[in-house]
This record gives sequence, structure tokens and C-alpha cells, in this order.
Amino acid sequence: MAAGAELFRRNGYAGTGLKQIVSEAGAPFGSLYHFFPGGKEQLGEEVIRTSGLAYIALFDLFIVPADDVVSGIEAFFAAGIATLEATDYVEGCPIATVALEVASTNEPLRKATADVFTAWIDAGTERFARFGLGREAARTLTITAVNNLEGAFVLCRSLRDTEAMAVAGAATVDVARRLLQEHTEL
Amino acid sequence: MAAGAELFRRNGYAGTGLKQIVSEAGAPFGSLYHFFPGGKEQLGEEVIRTSGLAYIALFDLFIVPADDVVSGIEAFFAAGIATLEATDYVEGCPIATVALEVASTNEPLRKATADVFTAWIDAGTERFARFGLGREAARTLTITAVNNLEGAFVLCRSLRDTEAMAVAGAATVDVARRLLQEHTEL
Repeated sequence: MAAGAELFRRNGYAGTGLKQIVSEAGAPFGSLYHFFPGGKEQLGEEVIRTSGLAYIALFDLFIVPADDVVSGIEAFFAAGIATLEATDYVEGCPIATVALEVASTNEPLRKATADVFTAWIDAGTERFARFGLGREAARTLTITAVNNLEGAFVLCRSLRDTEAMAVAGAATVDVARRLLQEHTEL
Repeated sequence: MAAGAELFRRNGYAGTGLKQIVSEAGAPFGSLYHFFPGGKEQLGEEVIRTSGLAYIALFDLFIVPADDVVSGIEAFFAAGIATLEATDYVEGCPIATVALEVASTNEPLRKATADVFTAWIDAGTERFARFGLGREAARTLTITAVNNLEGAFVLCRSLRDTEAMAVAGAATVDVARRLLQEHTEL
């Protein structure tokens, strides 16, 4: 699972061979079909669903302990910049590459990525709502944060530059400020 | 080139075989190496660079003729929603899938995607600056628009839902309003 997750993240789903996964894992080839009788697709689906949990942890690490919504968002995107720099722009979203590859080509895997994104949105909504934002505003803010993080990972990894991640954090803060103001006006 | 662009966009770079491209194009197999002696990588690079022009056209179609920055941004993201709906969520960014696949695996192709994103950012900056925004603010707004469009394509194509694209448009408008206000305050 760990070898598959690492290879899918780096090379994509189509670009990763089963032999590569088994070799990276130091496992005998037969063991793959023992644990994953559905082969690459089953492994892919389990990797997508498991990796998805990583992002929910990000909300708990950076948003939940923050003094306020804005400083939580700033910590969240600063961690995005730190990850890109620490991994030489290798690590971005654990599932975005696969999500784009399978969106129109593999319905069970598309469904797995959709379930993960739905879980992120629900988890983020619940965490942001703790700061007194209404549920609808908290959902909008979560989708804004994920949109900006995903888009910035594409630009930053391609350009090997963190500028887009800093811009993404500032944009998400702008949206948070508008939503907080609207909420206060109610 | 057109067959390659369509297949790379839909299946990704690793998921597209040369035979598939040649068959889709209705061309004899030998013709591929005649026109692209560098094979798949050369074709991939030329497809990335050519497809990149499509997004520059979007700035000219939706931002340049707008009465103001905000309505231009709204038209730009409404077109994103219309494209997703009209193509059953198949068409998103012409190069994002490949950009994520190659970011850490193929340096010539990564460089091609970086050149395209740089061209988009420069073109958008020039177009947004026409509305009286300073050059730095116009660059921030362009990166915000591209971040949000790219991120929303990931979420919308996975979830088969346009909500994230509407949220992306609203977020970009929030940033535009903040930048316009800061500029006016100068």
C-alpha cells in the first residue's frame, strides 16, 4: 500500500507498473494478487481511499488548534509551501494526479476519488464551522481552500516555485474575511 | 497533434499509447516517427506547448471585452462551468493531468508545462493590467484565477458537479475586489 501510494503520487496511476510496486515494496510478485485479487485497480482504489485520510489530518493539525480562522488558513498554506520545499516539489496532493487521470476513464477509481474529496469537504466544513461560521459558509470556505491548494500544487510543482501557494493562501483568507463579515452582519 | 492532445487530456500522458494516437488520427504508424523523430516525448512536448495557447485565448475571450474586472472574471468561470456541463466533465485544463504526471518524472516535459503556465500568467497579467490594476496586483489576480480554475477542474471532474467551479469564481472575485480597493487607496 505504501509503495503504491508513493509511486501513484509521483508517477500517476497509468505510469506505475505492478512490478514496480512489488519491487519497491520488496515483496514477492505473487503476494500482490494474494492481498489484492482485483490487481492494480483494487490496489489503486485502496490507496486512494487510505491516502485521502491524510488531508483530513491537515484540518485537525492546522485549522482546529488555530486562534482564529485566518491564522488557521495561514498555517495550512504555510505547511503547503514547507512541504513543496522539503520534498523538492515532489509531494503535492496524494490523489490529484490519479483523480485527473481516471475522471473520464475509470469509473470505480473516479468514484473513490469523489468519495475522498467529499470526505475532505465534510470534514473541513465541520472544522471551520467550529469558529462560528454558519454551515453553508464553512462549506464554501472549505471548497475554496481545497480548490486553491489543488490548483497551487499544479502550478508550484510545474514551475518549481512557491509563489502560487502563497497567492492561494491569501485568496482563501480573502474569502474567509468576506464570509466572516457576512456572518457578523446577520 | 489533435489526436494526441485529445488523448493526453482524457487519459494522461502515461495512459496514452503511440498506437492509440496513430489509430485515432487515422495515420500510418510510420508517419509518427517521420513527423516526430523524438517519438512520444517530442509529440507530448509539442502538444503541451500548442494546447497552452488555448488558455491565453480565454483571457482574450472573457477578460478583455468585459466592462469591468469582476464581470470579466464571472464570464471566465461561467465558461468553465459551461464547458464541464457540455462535455460531461471530460474537458478541463488541457495540460494539468500531464503537468502533474511529469512534474517529478520527465524534466523536458515539466519544462514545457512550466513555459505554458508562465505564458498564461504573463498574458493574464497584461490583460488584467488594462483595467488599471498595477502590474503586481494584476499578476496576483491572474495566479489566483489559474489556481482556482485548476483546483476546481480537479474537484468538479472527480465529483461530477459544478459547485467547486462556482466557488472558484466567487473566490477570484473576492481577490479582485480586495486588489481594486488597495489600488484605489494608493
